[in-house]
Order: sequence, then C-alpha cells, then structure tokens
Amino acid sequence: MARRRLTTDVAIVGAGTAGLAAWREVRKRGREALLIDPGPLGTTCARVGCMPSKLLIEAANAFHRRLVLDEFGIQGGTSLNIDLPTALARVRRLRDGFVAGTRRSTEAVGAALLRERASLLGPDRLAVGDCEVHARRIVLAPGSRPIIPGPWRALAASRLLTTDTLFEQRDLPERMAVLGAGAIGLELAQALARLGIEIHVFDLAPALPAVVDPVIGESLLACLGQELRLHLGAEAELTPTADALRVTNGTVDVAVERALVAVGRRPAIDGLGLETLGVPLDEHGLPPVHPETLQVANLPVFLAGDANAARAILHEAADEGHIAGINAASDSPEAFCRRTPMSIVFTDPNLARVGEVPQDADQGVVIGEVDFSRQGRARAAQHAYGRLRVYAEPKTGRLHGAEMCVPAGEHLVHLLGLAIHRQLSVHDLLGMPFYHPVLEEGLRSALRDAAGKLDSRRPASDLANCPSFDIEALD
Amino acid sequence: MARRRLTTDVAIVGAGTAGLAAWREVRKRGREALLIDPGPLGTTCARVGCMPSKLLIEAANAFHRRLVLDEFGIQGGTSLNIDLPTALARVRRLRDGFVAGTRRSTEAVGAALLRERASLLGPDRLAVGDCEVHARRIVLAPGSRPIIPGPWRALAASRLLTTDTLFEQRDLPERMAVLGAGAIGLELAQALARLGIEIHVFDLAPALPAVVDPVIGESLLACLGQELRLHLGAEAELTPTADALRVTNGTVDVAVERALVAVGRRPAIDGLGLETLGVPLDEHGLPPVHPETLQVANLPVFLAGDANAARAILHEAADEGHIAGINAASDSPEAFCRRTPMSIVFTDPNLARVGEVPQDADQGVVIGEVDFSRQGRARAAQHAYGRLRVYAEPKTGRLHGAEMCVPAGEHLVHLLGLAIHRQLSVHDLLGMPFYHPVLEEGLRSALRDAAGKLDSRRPASDLANCPSFDIEALD
Repeated sequence: MARRRLTTDVAIVGAGTAGLAAWREVRKRGREALLIDPGPLGTTCARVGCMPSKLLIEAANAFHRRLVLDEFGIQGGTSLNIDLPTALARVRRLRDGFVAGTRRSTEAVGAALLRERASLLGPDRLAVGDCEVHARRIVLAPGSRPIIPGPWRALAASRLLTTDTLFEQRDLPERMAVLGAGAIGLELAQALARLGIEIHVFDLAPALPAVVDPVIGESLLACLGQELRLHLGAEAELTPTADALRVTNGTVDVAVERALVAVGRRPAIDGLGLETLGVPLDEHGLPPVHPETLQVANLPVFLAGDANAARAILHEAADEGHIAGINAASDSPEAFCRRTPMSIVFTDPNLARVGEVPQDADQGVVIGEVDFSRQGRARAAQHAYGRLRVYAEPKTGRLHGAEMCVPAGEHLVHLLGLAIHRQLSVHDLLGMPFYHPVLEEGLRSALRDAAGKLDSRRPASDLANCPSFDIEALD
Repeated sequence: MARRRLTTDVAIVGAGTAGLAAWREVRKRGREALLIDPGPLGTTCARVGCMPSKLLIEAANAFHRRLVLDEFGIQGGTSLNIDLPTALARVRRLRDGFVAGTRRSTEAVGAALLRERASLLGPDRLAVGDCEVHARRIVLAPGSRPIIPGPWRALAASRLLTTDTLFEQRDLPERMAVLGAGAIGLELAQALARLGIEIHVFDLAPALPAVVDPVIGESLLACLGQELRLHLGAEAELTPTADALRVTNGTVDVAVERALVAVGRRPAIDGLGLETLGVPLDEHGLPPVHPETLQVANLPVFLAGDANAARAILHEAADEGHIAGINAASDSPEAFCRRTPMSIVFTDPNLARVGEVPQDADQGVVIGEVDFSRQGRARAAQHAYGRLRVYAEPKTGRLHGAEMCVPAGEHLVHLLGLAIHRQLSVHDLLGMPFYHPVLEEGLRSALRDAAGKLDSRRPASDLANCPSFDIEALD
C-alpha cells in the first residue's frame, strides 16, 4: 500500500521542550511545519523530570526541617509525620497542572500535530504512520530516555524504578537503593531519605560523579553522608529474591524492596532512521552535529535537545530548539553563541557549577574559597555548611568558573553566571553592593580570598575612585 | 584641673561598624590612631540590629511554615508549639556569639581603645574623659539611636520597647503594637506575628513607607495583611492604663501589653560638640558632609556611618568608615564612587530594591513586571506570591532599578544589583544562563516583558550570533 504523501517546509520530530521551541520559531517566520510526536505529550521536564523531582524535593525538605525546629524553640517537630501516599499524590497533582499547561500549548498546534512515531527515510523524507512526509528541512528533537543497563532489564518493573515510574508510585517502601550518584540520583536519593526511607546509594565511581572539584566533592560527601548510605567505588549487582532485591557491590550486601535506576539518560534515537542520512554515525549512533547551528553535517537536518547528547538540560534544550527552528526556517544557518555552562543539583546544600572548573588545581588558576560553616546568615538560619570556590585568571582576575555546595547555591550560581557571561573579574564583582546579613557575603569572602592571591596588588578599595572629583586639599 | 593631653594622628569616635573600618584603614597606612567609645561595644548591627532581628525572623519563619505542611502531606504541623522564652534565649545566645566576635576585634585595639565618651572642642581637639585629645584628623562615627517621639517618652520602659530592648525580653505578651511600618517595623511585626503574637501595626502614612512603587506596595500589603492588623494613615496615640497600653488612631482602639517603637533612628550626636566645628549645622544639627569623601566642609574631620543620616545600613556604614579612614590617613582626601543603592526588608516575601525606582511611573521609563503567584518553582515550594518590577531606559534597555516583594527577593536583588552596577541592559541580562526550575526565571519573565516594550525591536534571539562563524550555505 502506497503511503499518503504530505509536504511541508519543516518537519519537527518530537514535541518536547526543543521541538516546541523549534515549532514557535518556524511559525514565527511564516513557514509551514508539522510537529510529529506519538506522545505522551507534556515534555520530559514537566512529566518526569525537573518539575516532579522539585515537587518531591520541596516536600522532603519541608519534612526534614523538623530536625532543627527544636533549636528555634519550636516543640513537637519530632512528632511530625509524613504520609507518603498524600505526599506523592500532591507531586502528581501539581505535576499534572504543569503538564496540562505544556499539553495545551502543544495541542494548540491543531491539525499540524501528528500523533505518530516518525522514522527518517532520507535527509528530506520521513515515514509517519501511513504517511510519507516530504520536508525542505527536518528538525529532530526526539528527546532522551533513562538508561537501564542490560543485566538489569530482566528484573521486574515493580522492583526497578526509573524517573519514568517513580512519581507514579502510590507509596514507597522502607528501604530502597538508588543506583547511580549523578545529578538525578543524588537529588532524588536525598529527597527519598528525607521522606523517611532508608536509602543506599551505589556508584561505580569512587568520588561523586556530579562534582568536578575534589574539594567541593568532599564537602558535599560530608553533608550527604549524614543522611545517605553511600557505597561508592564498586559496581552494584542486583539479584531478585522472593520478596526483595539484593544489592551487592563486593563489600556491601543489602536487601531493598525497590531500586531507582539513575545511571543517566540516552538519546531516544532507536528506530529514528539516522542511518538513512548517509553520514557517518558515532559509537552511540549519533551523526555529527554543529554545536552552534545544530545542523547535521551539511544536510537540511537539525538535531536538537537531549537527543544530541551534548547539553541535556532544560534551558539548553530550549535554546537548541530555538536555534534549530530559526535555522530550519532560514536560507542559510546562523551560528549562535551558546550560554555559559551552568548546572544545579537540587540537593541540600545545592551543588552548583558555572563556567569552567579546572580539572587540575595546579594549572595556573587562582582559587578563592569560603567555608559556609561560619557564615553569619547561614548560622542564623540553621543551615551553616558547605563550601564555595571561584576560579580566576591570575593576571587579570577574570572569573573562569565557580563550583559550590552551599545553601542557596542555586541563587549564588546565577550571580556568578551573570559575572562569567559578562567576562567580569573578581574586582568587578567586589564593586557591587552586598547587603547584610546575606549568603552573598559568603561568596564575597571567596572573591576577597581570590583577590588576595592575584598577581596584581589588590587595590586599596573595592570602591572605584571618582575621577571627575575636584576638592581642595585637606589642610 | 587641667586635662591630660594626648596627641595622635587620627582620633576615631565610635567603635561601631564605621569606626572599626576607619581604624583598620588608618592603621594599615601606618598612622597612629585612638579609638574612642564608652560602650557597649559590639556594633549596632550585631547587638541590636541586623543579627538579632534575623535570628528572630528565622525562628518565626520556621514556625510559620507549619501552616503549609499539610499541603506536602506532613501531619502534625498545627500541633507544633513555640516556646517564646526558649526562642528568645536562642536569639541572645547566637547574638552574643556574633557580638563576641566583634568585641574581640575591638578589644584587640588594646591601649589605643579609650572607653570614654568624646566631645569635640574644635576641629582638631576632643574632650575624652579627663583627657584632651589633639588629633591631626578626626573621624566621627558615633552611630544612631532609635527615635522615641516626645509624647511617648514618659511611658514606662517596660511597656514601650525599641530594638535596644526587644531582644532582651524573656517572654513576649499575647498582643502587641508596632508603631511604625518602615523597614524595621515591618520585618519585626511580621516576625512577632509569626511567633503567635497578635500584632497591630500603626503608621501615619497611608501606604507602606518602605516601598517606592505603589504597585509593589499593594502587592506587599496584600501579603502582609493576611498576618498583621495594619492600621495606616492616621497617627497613633498611646495612653497607659492599669495593666496595658491603649493605642488609638481615631478609628482603631486596642489595648496591648507592650508596644515596639519603630519610627526610625537618628544620629547619636547629642553632646558630640558639632557646634564647635565652626560650620553651619542643619535643622537636625548636622554639618555639611561630602558624600564621596565624607569630609565635613573643608575641615580635617570626617563624619561616617549612621551618624551622617545619609545611608544608614550596615554595608554603607562599612564603606563610609573605609572611605573616612583612607582619607583621614592621606594628605588629600579622595572621592570614592558609592555603591548602587540597595535595600532589603526581610519580610516574607522579601521587599527589596536596587538602583533607581521612578517616583512617577509615567516619566518615560519602561517597566517590566512579573507576578510570582504563577511562577513554577515558587508554586513547587508553596510560596507563590508577590510581584517584581524592573525599570529600564526605553531607548537602550539599560536597567535603572528594580523593586520587588517576592520569595528569595534578597537573592534576586543581588543579581539585579550586579547588572545595574555594571550598567547592563535588559538584553545583556537575557543572555545569561537561567537554570530551570528556579525563581530567577520569574525575574527573566519581567526582563522579557520589559524587552518587548523597548523602543528598539527585540532581537530574534537572546543568544548572540557568533560573528566569526563560517559555514557553507544550507543546500
């Protein structure tokens, strides 16, 4: 049976964050487009990613706070109780609200939304259900999926959870394993522990893989080690038993009722037909993609979002859809400067990083550091812990990057993000107002520490002289 | 009896934040100095200001949070109880730690610290106890005191509190008045209310005097009105009764056990002898002070910190001591650029302001606005309320200022503070990374709102084009 033929200016595969951004850019430029996604609609972020995890984390942190209430003179904190089914139902209720918002904007696409799976037939054609779509340009944004390593795939889905299924649980057991201590593993492990579950975290890596600077890694490890049983440096093996899962790594052997697999996500490119593009694919099956145009080789094809495995976080996926959409709608692709790299892991303390963190501390970078355990405002709020480091160019003081595990790290990293984006120096930042008492004063201590180590002498004042000033000499 | 004569390079009156900063700068430059303060030592900030208020506020907010625990699935929140004597004892215990730190650095001054009251005898001489101090330069930094309006001074100190006495209370009554809805009045009123005390706030002003933009004022009023009984727009009168204080303003008439007077602070210049300087004094008894050198007229005298009534907040007092100290130790005074003005009131939501806020919204300024009641992350944390506005130059998009009452306003205002300090535009800020989901995305919405209203067309992308890029044209 011959397929029905559809033609369009731009075919967009995937109605996630990247695909939706591409759709908007293409339509804004007056081009026709088809948006192709078999569902579920609503974006990875809203359905199974950023939003439900933050909803769970906020509940967990609210419950955890009971342990310091006594310090404040508040009685009864230890008799607070969390009802996990209610907590999980709230996560779904609010998540469904976020998903509904995204779905509405997806469904507003109308007849141009094809709820089908797409498979490339070449650089200008796709099989979509019983249609063949011919497009002048194609934007591929199929997203990503949680990785489940081969040996574990045979285990019962009721025992082995991923972020696709965790938030669907009606209740959670007393003891769980989290397999993988990366960004997602760490923040969910801490949240689950704070909800009262005994959590065992396993990772092959001997240090926390989400951290670059070992000094920050040790500080975070010391904080998290108080709440989590961290088993690092050896591979975990899973064995199903009658009523549990046995997790062993050679030295540890625990029985858990469920395990959350958080060893990463991979591009959802199975069956996408990338091999029909006629360009070489790498060992992960991915074609060459230009990071500033998102163009695949010299083809009229763009690969955006998590699926290109480059910067698999929401704000970068949105940028990539935006770049791919603009370029798919224009006659020649433009290159866009990508954002200063930034990442936040929503543990408490927040692990956050921006710009470049030196892999090797001795490579001619000045490091300014501060320990938040003595920071005034952090002590007032009963969350004085963690450490922050800034990395600067020794001659000019220009900031290269920062890494931290501190309270309100998610905010401090944005301040540093602006500074690094604008190529500012340690001295430039020290000229801004720092109120009192705020956690930003902790950051200032790190900046002052760096300023004292720069090649140039620190100026007498963080306040600039007013050059236009004219005053009679004193006496 | 002739006074003993002491000579020094620089006499510094007041060992508070400004005086201590001046001392460090003078000594760093190898000049002799005397630091004169009758005590109590420890700075206004640590003893009776920023620090104890924040300690009280953190306890109050921790207790208040019980009201949303139910939303998270946490049971028992409403049966939490606060023990005020314990809460107040914690405030004093931690405060004493902060004060001890400041006292230690003050006492390290050693014999150069004179624990006496000082009174000017002229622009180069001071009476200090039984000594006459002759100094080449004098830095005056005597600080400020809470204002108690004349008619109220006769009331019993046990009924009428100020920030000098509030934190010394062993317990607090069931009902209190807060007289004054400025920065200090508002943040302490909310804290006291959140500790379970029925609070009546009185202010002569018809709108919240701590806010400049009426739209932000209304938003804050709506938030605070749920916790406080706000009686604005009429003068309060106090009448002592047998076992209470009666507070009336014409329409309201309440009996309270204690009242906190928070109508402002005034320079502590009584008996300082400013009249001996031979320069005209204004209606408040203050001499002319140059804001960028802190020099008094053309005299070898500098007036720094709260006492000059210009920028009576800690980080500015520290800057002023620093400027006065540098200038007192040098041959000719230098002018220093002052910081971008910033203020934070630690209510929830935080009221915060930076840069210039237009008094009149129609004066050719573009306003970008965002309502935080629909902000994603704020909703996840169950604190979705408040409003933020940015003010920009219509032609260039350069940011003039911002005002807000939003969760984490204390952090967002620092990000905006850096932007305004560096004279950045709305577009410059939109180029930085914004992670997801964070409250900074709310700020970004306000920036985008402003960007859409600028005279120039908004560029196609917040991402800059890479000019160096060279790629073959697409097909």
